[in-house]
Amino acid sequence: MKKTKEKVNAAIIIIGNEILSGRTQDVNVVIISKWLNELGVKLDEVRVIPDIEDSIIKNVNELRKKFNYVFTTGGIGPTHDDITSKSIAKAFNFSYGYHKKAYSMLEKYYGKDEFNRGRKKMAKIPNNASLILNPSSGAPGFIVDNVYCLPGVPSILKSMLGGLNNNITGGKKILNKTITLKTVESEISEPLEKVQNKYKKDIEIGSYPFFKKGKIGVSIVIRSTDKNLIFKCERDIKKIVEKKNIMIEN
Amino acid sequence: MKKTKEKVNAAIIIIGNEILSGRTQDVNVVIISKWLNELGVKLDEVRVIPDIEDSIIKNVNELRKKFNYVFTTGGIGPTHDDITSKSIAKAFNFSYGYHKKAYSMLEKYYGKDEFNRGRKKMAKIPNNASLILNPSSGAPGFIVDNVYCLPGVPSILKSMLGGLNNNITGGKKILNKTITLKTVESEISEPLEKVQNKYKKDIEIGSYPFFKKGKIGVSIVIRSTDKNLIFKCERDIKKIVEKKNIMIEN
Repeated sequence: MKKTKEKVNAAIIIIGNEILSGRTQDVNVVIISKWLNELGVKLDEVRVIPDIEDSIIKNVNELRKKFNYVFTTGGIGPTHDDITSKSIAKAFNFSYGYHKKAYSMLEKYYGKDEFNRGRKKMAKIPNNASLILNPSSGAPGFIVDNVYCLPGVPSILKSMLGGLNNNITGGKKILNKTITLKTVESEISEPLEKVQNKYKKDIEIGSYPFFKKGKIGVSIVIRSTDKNLIFKCERDIKKIVEKKNIMIEN
Repeated sequence: MKKTKEKVNAAIIIIGNEILSGRTQDVNVVIISKWLNELGVKLDEVRVIPDIEDSIIKNVNELRKKFNYVFTTGGIGPTHDDITSKSIAKAFNFSYGYHKKAYSMLEKYYGKDEFNRGRKKMAKIPNNASLILNPSSGAPGFIVDNVYCLPGVPSILKSMLGGLNNNITGGKKILNKTITLKTVESEISEPLEKVQNKYKKDIEIGSYPFFKKGKIGVSIVIRSTDKNLIFKCERDIKKIVEKKNIMIEN
């Protein structure tokens, strides 16, 4: 039986001036993170960087050594500002040009007459890359070593993740339990810290105040790979809360 | 007359396990970025990092040397997972403890009887910091050198930015113009690249395909500090588009 690694982690590099300029609200981090959770991979860092070759090369080379998996989003389309493929080839010192399989895949998708120069550019991929199939719009993503390059359009990106499940070897799945309380953080901060100290690094307790539609409250999120520990921790927190006559909303 | 610097840049460090886990959708990047645009500051990098002291220290120290301004969000509340203030103090080798002004400000806000240990924690700030006033919920943010520490709750963060306008010395304001086209990217990628090459680094042209409610199209975004160049570039792009009989939506 294959032994499951305790911890497997990942980073995301969002390549896109449109995110940095505030024009576009990123939603890919949430999509990828939730998918990784299911596979037992913990997202440990995200960077949003501009469409600049040097910046892509530097960040990819730094993070691929530091994390088990790196996912990039954006910059693999047909226009001049799509420079991810070329930059990744340079980061790995691979040659960059028409990728045979990607070329014939795209030629088939568009038909010979419609396969113009812009579309052909999307077949330019580092030569040693394997492809990530795109069921939505033809143009593939690609994998070089532990770096997975995906498009920026969220609906297309999402449609490509399922096909990657077998490429990712996760660790223990990270489970979580949320307790929603009708209180403010300062009312529970002291005993909550004691609970966190009791479980040390086996459990991660997050405390998140919310203010919406005139309601205020605090969500306590317990995260761990150990279901029993989460259960015990939940019981400890509920004891504190009852002692303080704080209402639990769930 | 004070000379306006050509380029002033910034980075954001989002401190928060809840963003990395996919539980919470970050919206602070868009809020801060749009505010910076108005002040003539270009956001050049964003990092999302976990609530881990070493990670905060390392990233703050790296980015504060690289950018004119660094903004952190999150981790300045009353609970055990709020470790931003302490970590920033360590990053700068400053002592960390009750900040006189913050303490008296919070004591006044809550009243002596309600000023409990959790709330007092929010008065622990690096000793040399200046405060960022919080008109929404009392607890201040703070500034050390070029590092600005803000809360994670978007509505509170937003309410604090206005008070900072006079602290930020921006460069030339980055202007933008969007042309929305009824086409696909590959139809315009070739001539668009020529336009980009013509204007070199004086203009940044982004091409963003969209697919929504059954409509497809491309938004071409022209960004520059020079209004006249944007106007000329817009005219060039519209010429191409008319030649190709592509419909302009705006």
